[in-house]
Amino acid sequence: MNKTSCDSSTWSGRFSEPVDKLVQNFTASVNFDYRLASFDIEASLAHARMLCAQDIISAHDLEDIERGMNEISQEISEGRFEWKIALEDVHLNIERRLTELVGDAGKRLHTGRSRNDQVATDIRLYLRDATDQISILLTRLQEALLEKAQNHTHTIMPGFTHLQVAQPVSFAHHLMAYFEMLNRDDERLTECRKRINRLPLGAAALAGSGYPINREMVAQSLGFEGLCSNSLDAVSDRDFAIEFTAAAALIMMHLSRLSEEIILWMNPQFGFIDLSDRFCTGSSIMPQKKNPDVPELVRGKSGRVYGHLMSLLTLMKSQPLAYNKDNQEDKEPLFDTVDTLVATLTLYSSLIQGIEVKPQRMHQALKQGFATATDLADYLVIKGIPFRDAHESVARAVREAERLDCDLADLDIHILKTFHESIEPDVYQVLTPEGSIATRTLPGGTAPETVKNAIKIAKEHLLKRQGK
Amino acid sequence: MNKTSCDSSTWSGRFSEPVDKLVQNFTASVNFDYRLASFDIEASLAHARMLCAQDIISAHDLEDIERGMNEISQEISEGRFEWKIALEDVHLNIERRLTELVGDAGKRLHTGRSRNDQVATDIRLYLRDATDQISILLTRLQEALLEKAQNHTHTIMPGFTHLQVAQPVSFAHHLMAYFEMLNRDDERLTECRKRINRLPLGAAALAGSGYPINREMVAQSLGFEGLCSNSLDAVSDRDFAIEFTAAAALIMMHLSRLSEEIILWMNPQFGFIDLSDRFCTGSSIMPQKKNPDVPELVRGKSGRVYGHLMSLLTLMKSQPLAYNKDNQEDKEPLFDTVDTLVATLTLYSSLIQGIEVKPQRMHQALKQGFATATDLADYLVIKGIPFRDAHESVARAVREAERLDCDLADLDIHILKTFHESIEPDVYQVLTPEGSIATRTLPGGTAPETVKNAIKIAKEHLLKRQGK
Amino acid sequence: MNKTSCDSSTWSGRFSEPVDKLVQNFTASVNFDYRLASFDIEASLAHARMLCAQDIISAHDLEDIERGMNEISQEISEGRFEWKIALEDVHLNIERRLTELVGDAGKRLHTGRSRNDQVATDIRLYLRDATDQISILLTRLQEALLEKAQNHTHTIMPGFTHLQVAQPVSFAHHLMAYFEMLNRDDERLTECRKRINRLPLGAAALAGSGYPINREMVAQSLGFEGLCSNSLDAVSDRDFAIEFTAAAALIMMHLSRLSEEIILWMNPQFGFIDLSDRFCTGSSIMPQKKNPDVPELVRGKSGRVYGHLMSLLTLMKSQPLAYNKDNQEDKEPLFDTVDTLVATLTLYSSLIQGIEVKPQRMHQALKQGFATATDLADYLVIKGIPFRDAHESVARAVREAERLDCDLADLDIHILKTFHESIEPDVYQVLTPEGSIATRTLPGGTAPETVKNAIKIAKEHLLKRQGK
Amino acid sequence: MNKTSCDSSTWSGRFSEPVDKLVQNFTASVNFDYRLASFDIEASLAHARMLCAQDIISAHDLEDIERGMNEISQEISEGRFEWKIALEDVHLNIERRLTELVGDAGKRLHTGRSRNDQVATDIRLYLRDATDQISILLTRLQEALLEKAQNHTHTIMPGFTHLQVAQPVSFAHHLMAYFEMLNRDDERLTECRKRINRLPLGAAALAGSGYPINREMVAQSLGFEGLCSNSLDAVSDRDFAIEFTAAAALIMMHLSRLSEEIILWMNPQFGFIDLSDRFCTGSSIMPQKKNPDVPELVRGKSGRVYGHLMSLLTLMKSQPLAYNKDNQEDKEPLFDTVDTLVATLTLYSSLIQGIEVKPQRMHQALKQGFATATDLADYLVIKGIPFRDAHESVARAVREAERLDCDLADLDIHILKTFHESIEPDVYQVLTPEGSIATRTLPGGTAPETVKNAIKIAKEHLLKRQGK
Repeated sequence: MNKTSCDSSTWSGRFSEPVDKLVQNFTASVNFDYRLASFDIEASLAHARMLCAQDIISAHDLEDIERGMNEISQEISEGRFEWKIALEDVHLNIERRLTELVGDAGKRLHTGRSRNDQVATDIRLYLRDATDQISILLTRLQEALLEKAQNHTHTIMPGFTHLQVAQPVSFAHHLMAYFEMLNRDDERLTECRKRINRLPLGAAALAGSGYPINREMVAQSLGFEGLCSNSLDAVSDRDFAIEFTAAAALIMMHLSRLSEEIILWMNPQFGFIDLSDRFCTGSSIMPQKKNPDVPELVRGKSGRVYGHLMSLLTLMKSQPLAYNKDNQEDKEPLFDTVDTLVATLTLYSSLIQGIEVKPQRMHQALKQGFATATDLADYLVIKGIPFRDAHESVARAVREAERLDCDLADLDIHILKTFHESIEPDVYQVLTPEGSIATRTLPGGTAPETVKNAIKIAKEHLLKRQGK
Repeated sequence: MNKTSCDSSTWSGRFSEPVDKLVQNFTASVNFDYRLASFDIEASLAHARMLCAQDIISAHDLEDIERGMNEISQEISEGRFEWKIALEDVHLNIERRLTELVGDAGKRLHTGRSRNDQVATDIRLYLRDATDQISILLTRLQEALLEKAQNHTHTIMPGFTHLQVAQPVSFAHHLMAYFEMLNRDDERLTECRKRINRLPLGAAALAGSGYPINREMVAQSLGFEGLCSNSLDAVSDRDFAIEFTAAAALIMMHLSRLSEEIILWMNPQFGFIDLSDRFCTGSSIMPQKKNPDVPELVRGKSGRVYGHLMSLLTLMKSQPLAYNKDNQEDKEPLFDTVDTLVATLTLYSSLIQGIEVKPQRMHQALKQGFATATDLADYLVIKGIPFRDAHESVARAVREAERLDCDLADLDIHILKTFHESIEPDVYQVLTPEGSIATRTLPGGTAPETVKNAIKIAKEHLLKRQGK
Repeated sequence: MNKTSCDSSTWSGRFSEPVDKLVQNFTASVNFDYRLASFDIEASLAHARMLCAQDIISAHDLEDIERGMNEISQEISEGRFEWKIALEDVHLNIERRLTELVGDAGKRLHTGRSRNDQVATDIRLYLRDATDQISILLTRLQEALLEKAQNHTHTIMPGFTHLQVAQPVSFAHHLMAYFEMLNRDDERLTECRKRINRLPLGAAALAGSGYPINREMVAQSLGFEGLCSNSLDAVSDRDFAIEFTAAAALIMMHLSRLSEEIILWMNPQFGFIDLSDRFCTGSSIMPQKKNPDVPELVRGKSGRVYGHLMSLLTLMKSQPLAYNKDNQEDKEPLFDTVDTLVATLTLYSSLIQGIEVKPQRMHQALKQGFATATDLADYLVIKGIPFRDAHESVARAVREAERLDCDLADLDIHILKTFHESIEPDVYQVLTPEGSIATRTLPGGTAPETVKNAIKIAKEHLLKRQGK
Repeated sequence: MNKTSCDSSTWSGRFSEPVDKLVQNFTASVNFDYRLASFDIEASLAHARMLCAQDIISAHDLEDIERGMNEISQEISEGRFEWKIALEDVHLNIERRLTELVGDAGKRLHTGRSRNDQVATDIRLYLRDATDQISILLTRLQEALLEKAQNHTHTIMPGFTHLQVAQPVSFAHHLMAYFEMLNRDDERLTECRKRINRLPLGAAALAGSGYPINREMVAQSLGFEGLCSNSLDAVSDRDFAIEFTAAAALIMMHLSRLSEEIILWMNPQFGFIDLSDRFCTGSSIMPQKKNPDVPELVRGKSGRVYGHLMSLLTLMKSQPLAYNKDNQEDKEPLFDTVDTLVATLTLYSSLIQGIEVKPQRMHQALKQGFATATDLADYLVIKGIPFRDAHESVARAVREAERLDCDLADLDIHILKTFHESIEPDVYQVLTPEGSIATRTLPGGTAPETVKNAIKIAKEHLLKRQGK
C-alpha cells in the first residue's frame, strides 16, 4: 500500500481547526479497510446502475462512473493507486479518485447512500466471499481426512478417555470424529451466510434514504438474498461478524484438539505417526529435533480467534443505536480471523495427507492399558451377569494382571475363572483388539465395516454439498 | 437439595485408599447436575424400553425399572430424594436408588451405555428444552415490541449516530430495530437446536456399545432428529453448548444495547420515557431517585454470558479425544446462561409493555441538533446539485443557525438562499420532523406507513413461527 | 440459607406500585451476598464506634447496636437468621433485623454512609481475607513442590520442547519451574492486596458524606492501609476485583500447565509418575481405568476463571460514573474465583505430595530422542568449532544414529569421527544423561548441586515470606 | 519492510524435503518480530561482550561482531536491510547478515544461547521499554486532568448514580476520579515492570547453557534487575506479557468509561462540554454533525485489548513445559496492545486539554433531579431524626415537588414543614448546589477546598514519581 499525505479533509466546510496528523492516523481506517476495495467498487457500480435506472443520475454519468471505476480497479491491481490517509477510508479514497477522473459524475455517486450503509454493504460482500472460500477449504480438509481414513479402518490404536487407555478404536474411526466436527462447522457457516447475505444499502445514515432508489434491484445485482428490514438495524448490526467469528472459534477449537493429538502422537513415547518434514522445523541448538511447528502454531492460533470473538462482543456491548464510530474496530479482528482460518485450513489439508501412520507403535500401546477390559465385562453381561457385578469382577481381574505385569489376554483361563465362574475359553476372542473392535458394529461404532460405511456416507455428503 | 454422606464409592473394587472428602467435593457434580434429574430419568426409561425390546433385559426388569423410576420421580418432586455427594453425580444417585428400590433390574439398566454417552444425552435433552423455552420468551418480547411500536409510528424522536442528533425517526421504527435483532436470535437458536437434537447414546464410553442395542429406537422415543454419527465425537462433542452460549451472548448483547438506551432515555436530560415503578428501585440515601435497576442489571449480565462463552471455549481448547473429566465443567456455565436468559427475557417483555413514552420531550430534543440538515441536502440534490456540493452548502447553513442559536426551519428564506440559490420556499416542507420522516418510504425506512407495514409483516412472521 | 417472604420494601415511601416478585428475585442479591455478612457486621461496628466517638450517636445507641449485632452474628452462625429476599441484600437484611432487635439505634446506624460505600467496604474486607488465605495456600503448595523436588535432584527425565525430547533435566529442576511461577503469583497477590486494602467508607452515595465522620478512625480499626482518595472513584471502583481475578487466572493457567503434564505423565506411554488413588477415579464401564480426575478438572477450571475475568472486564466497560446497578454483578464471579482457587490449591498440595516418581520410565524415555545431541554440539564448540558448523555435524550424526536405530552414545568412535575430526573418546562423558546435566551449573541450570542450591534459596524465601 | 526470497533454510542439515512456501509464511515470524531488531542487537552485543570477557570468543571476534552489528543497525535504520522470510525470524535474519559481513565471528555469536532464551530476552527488553513509555504517557494524561480540574473546583454538575441525578459534585472532583484510576494503573505497570525486568538469557533451549558464560554480567549490562531463576521457566514464561496486557485492559477500561462520559456530555441533551474540532469528524451525509470520533474509537478499542488478553491466556492454557512453538503467537497481541495504548494515551492528553466546559448547562441539569434531596435528609438527621425516618419525610417532599414541577428549594417553608416539623428556614442553605458541595469536606469529598487539596497532593505525587 502506498500512502501519501493530503491537505484537504472531507468535512472541510464544518471545522475551523486543521486536523491533527495524530488524530488522522488514529481515526483513519484506510490502512486496513483498503482490503475492501474490490467490494466497494462492486457495490458502487451496482448502486450507480440503479441510480441511472431510477433516473437519478444520467446515462452519461453512469458511463463516466463505470469508466472511472474501471481505471481505479486497474490502478489498484497494478499497485499504482495512491491510498491517502487524509481521505480516511477506502470509500473516500475511491470516491475522491473517481471525481478526479470523471468530475461531477463522481460527486453524484454518493446520492442516496451514506458511508454507514456503504461500509456495512462492503463488509458483508467481503465476508460472504470469505465464507465461501472457507467452506471450500473445509471440504478439502474433510476430503483429506476421508482419504487418510479409508486406508486405516483396520489400523487399531488405543482410544483414550482421560488420556488413559480405554478401548481399542481404529485410526480411521478416530479421524472420522474430526470429519463430524468439521461437518457441523460447515453447517454453521452455511447458516451464518444467509444472515450475512442481506443488503443494508438504502438505509443511508440511519433513517432510510430519502431518494427514490430501488433497493431490490441493487440486492439482486449483488446477489443478496434479501434486504435488511430496518434502517437503524441495517447500519448498526454487526451480528453477522460476531456469529462468523464464533463459528471460526469453533473451527479453531476443533483444530486445536487435532493439533494437540498430532503433537502427542509425534512425541517419541507415542510415536503413532510421523509428519512430513515440510510441516516441521529443526532447532537452532538441538540438531536432532523435529518439531511439529505447524500443529503447535495452529493450537496457539485458537487463542487469536477466541480473542477476536471477545473483542467483537465487547465492541458491541451496550452501544446505543444507531451507528457509532466504535464499529470501525470490527474490521481488523474479522480480517485476521479470515486470514487465520484460510491459512490454517489450507495447510491442514496437506498436513493430513502427509501423515505417516505407524501401526506397530499403536499396537504396542494397546498392550499397556488393559484396553479390552470393557469387552470382558460385556462378555459377562451377555452371559446374564448384572452390569455392576460384571464390572466388579473385571476390576479384580485387572488388578491381578497389573500385579503380574501382563495383559488380560495373557491370564490363564483358570485364573480368569476365579474372577467369575461364567468365564469360558471363548473369552479370548474378545480379549484381542481385533476381536474388540469387530463387535462395535452399531451406527457410529468402530468396527471396520461400520467405519467403511461411515466413510461412504461422508463422501456422498461432500459430493452433495458441492452440488455434484 | 438434601445431601448426606455415604460410605461406599462406585469404584470400590479398584482402589485401595479411601476417597478423601475434599476430593469428593471437588470431583462430584451432583451439587449442580441434579438439575438434569428429569432428563436422566426420561433417557433411562427410553433406554430400558429399548433394552427390553431388544431382549437384553426382561419385561419384568423393565417393569421394575419403570416402577422404580416412577417412585424416584415422586421422591424428587416432593423433595424427599436424598442426593448423596459420595455418589458423585445425578446418574449414580438415581441408579443407586433404583437398585435399592428394585434390585437387580436396577443393576442391569446401565447395560450398553456409559456415563459418557449418558451425560451427553441428558445435557442435550436439557438444552433442547431450554432452547424451546427461550424461543417462546423471545417471541413474547418481540410481541411486546410490536405492541408498543404500533402506537408510536407517528411519535418522532431524534435518531442518533455517534450519540449526536442525526435525523428524525419514529419511536416505532427504533423499536423495530430490536425486533429485527431478536428475529436473528431466534433463527440462530432454531438452527442450533438441530445440532443439539441428535442422540449420543450408544456411543458408550467412546468406541460404541458392544451390545445389540437399537439407537434409532431410542432416538425416536426421545424425539431426537438423528444419531451422532461417530462414537468418539458423540462423547466429546460440546459444540452445541458453545454454539448455544454464543447465540445467548448475542441475545444479551442486543439487550445490553436496549438497556443502555432505556437508561439514557430515563435520564432527566433526555426524559424520553418513564418505566413502571416495578422495574426500578429507590436509593437508601437519595429519596428522589428512581433507578432503572432492571435495565442496568441486564446490561451488566451481558458480561456474565460473555464470560461463560469464554469459559466453554477455553475448556475445549486442545483437549485430546475422547471424553476428559474437564468436560464436567460444561454444566455450570450452561445452566447459568439459561437461567440468565430466561429471567432476563421474562422481565423484559413486561418492561417494554410498561414503558411510558413522552413524545413532548422527544420533540424538544429534535430541536437541538439540526436533525433535518440531511433533508435540506437531499432537497438540493433532487434539484440537481451534486451531492458533495449540496453537503457543503448545508454545512454553511448549519453554522449560521448555530451562530443564531436557532433551528434550520427558523432561518428566513433570504438567509437560506445565501447558502444555495436553488433553495425555494417549499424547502420548509422538508425541514420539519414530520416532513422528514414522511419521505423515508423505502423498505426499511421510517415513514409511518412504511413502519406500519413492517409491523404487519412482523406480526405475520410471529404467527407463522408459532404455527398459527 | 433460609429465605422468607416479606411484605414491606425499603423504598415504600416513593413508589405507588407493589414490587413484583420476579423483579425482586432479579434485583435482589441476598442469595449470594449473604456471604458478606460477617464483613458487613464488622464494618458496621467500626462505623458505629466512630459515630459514637464523633458524638453523632450516643453511647447508649452504640451499646444497643453492639448488642444487636452480637445477637445477629449468633443467629447467622447458628443458622437461625431469616434472610428475606424482599430486603434485597445482606445490608438491609442485617439493618432491618437490628432495628427489630434494638429499635431507633438501628435506624441511626446508616447515618453518614450509603449502601454504595458500604458494599464497596464489605467486598474489600472479603477479598482481603480471601487473598490472605490464598497466599497461605500458595505457600503450602510451594512447600510441597520443594519437598518433592529435594528428593529428585538426581532423577533425570527428558526435558521437552515442542513435546519432543530436547535435553535431560532433573525432575527436581522441572518442579522448580512451577515454584518460580507460583512465586510470581504470590508477588502479584501481595501487590494487589495493597490496592484492595483501602477504605471507601465515607464516600457515601458518591459525593462524600456530609456528616462530621472520621474516616481515618474507621480505616484504622478495620486494618485498612489508607483511604480511597476520591468519593466518586470509591463507590465505582472495581479494579481490585479485576486485578485479583487476573492474578487468579494466571494461577489457574500455571496449574493448567502442571495438570496437563501430570495427565501426560500418567498416560501409560509415559508412565513417568503415579498419583495417589485418592486423586483419581475409576470408570463406570472400564474397570481398569485410573483417571487423573483432579488434574483434569483443574485444567478445565482454568476456563472458569478466565471467563470470570472476561465477565468483570465486560461489566465495567464504558460504565459512566458513579455507581450503577450493573456492579452488583461483580460478586458471583469473584466468589466463584475465590472458591475455585481455594479448593484447587488445597488439593494440589496433597496431590504433589502423593506423586510417586518412576525414574526407570523417565530414564527409558531419555533413550528415545537423542537428548544429548546438544551436548555433542557444545563439545565441538568448546574445541573451537563455530557454533553453526558444529550444529551441522551433529545433525549428520543424529541422522546416522536414527538410521541405525541407536542412541548417540552407542555410535562407535570411528563413526563419530566421520562427522567431525575433532571428536575424541572423551566425548562419551557428555553423551550420557548424567554427564549432560552435570555440566549445567549456571544459575538456573539443571545440575544437581545447582538445583539443590536453588531449593535452599527457595526455602529461605518462603520462611522470610512467612516472617520466620 | 523489504522481504526477498532465500533459497537456504536454517535446518538444512536435517531435512530431506524442501520447505513449502506456504509453511514458510505460516511459521515465519519476521513479518512482525522485525520490530524487535534493535533489542535483538542490543542483547547480542551484551552477549558477545560477555563471551569475550569469559574467553569464549576472541577480542577479534568481538570487534568483528560489533562492527557488523553497527553496520546492520545502520542498514535497518536506513531501510536498506533485506528481511528474508526464508530466514524465519528477526534473530536469524540478523545473525545470517552478520555472518555475511564478518564471517566466522558471526557463527560464534550464538554460542551459549538458544533462540528460546534469545527471544525471551528480546521481548522483555521491548516490553520494558514500552512500559516506561506508557508510564510517561499516563503521567502526562494525569497532568492534563489536574490542569483541567484546577479550573473547575467551583464548576458544579450533577453527580449521577444509575445515570439519575444524585447529588451535586464539582467537575474537578469528577475528573479527579479518573486521576485516581490512572494512578492505580501506573502502580500496576511499575510492579509488572519488576517481573518483566529479569534476564532469561543463559537458559539456552531449556536446561541452562553448558558454557562457562556469565549471566550476571549480561544482566547488568542490559539493565536487568535479576536473573530468571529456573531455565525451564525462563524459556516458557509469558506471565509478564499477560500481566502487562491485563494492566493494559484496565487502562483501556478506565478510558472507555471516560469516553462514554465524554460522548454523553457532548450529546446535545447534556451539552456539558465541547471538544476541540480536531478530535471530532463530520458526517458524509449529515453536515451538522460533530461526532466525538476519538472517544468513540477509544471506547471500541477497549474490546481490542480485552481480546488480546484473552488470546494470551488461551495461548498459555495447558501448555506443557518448556518452550512450544505456540508461544510465537505472543507477539502480535502484545505489539498491538502497546501500540493501542501509546496512541490512545497520547491523544487523550490533548483531548482533555481541549475540553471546553459549559457550566451553564451543567447548572441547568442540576435542577432536573432534586439533587439536594440527600442534603435535606442530612439536615433532618443532624437535628436528631433517625436516618430512616428522615428518608421517608424527604421522599414525600420530593413527591410533592414532582407534582408541582418545581425544585425542592422552590417549595415554601410551610409546605416543607408538612413533611417534617423540624424543618426551619435555615434549610434553604443546604438546598442549593453550592451549599450542598460546601458540606462535603471529608477527605475524598467534593467541597472546593477539599478538591483543591486533593489536586495539590496529586501534583506532589506526580513530581515524586518523576523523581523531581
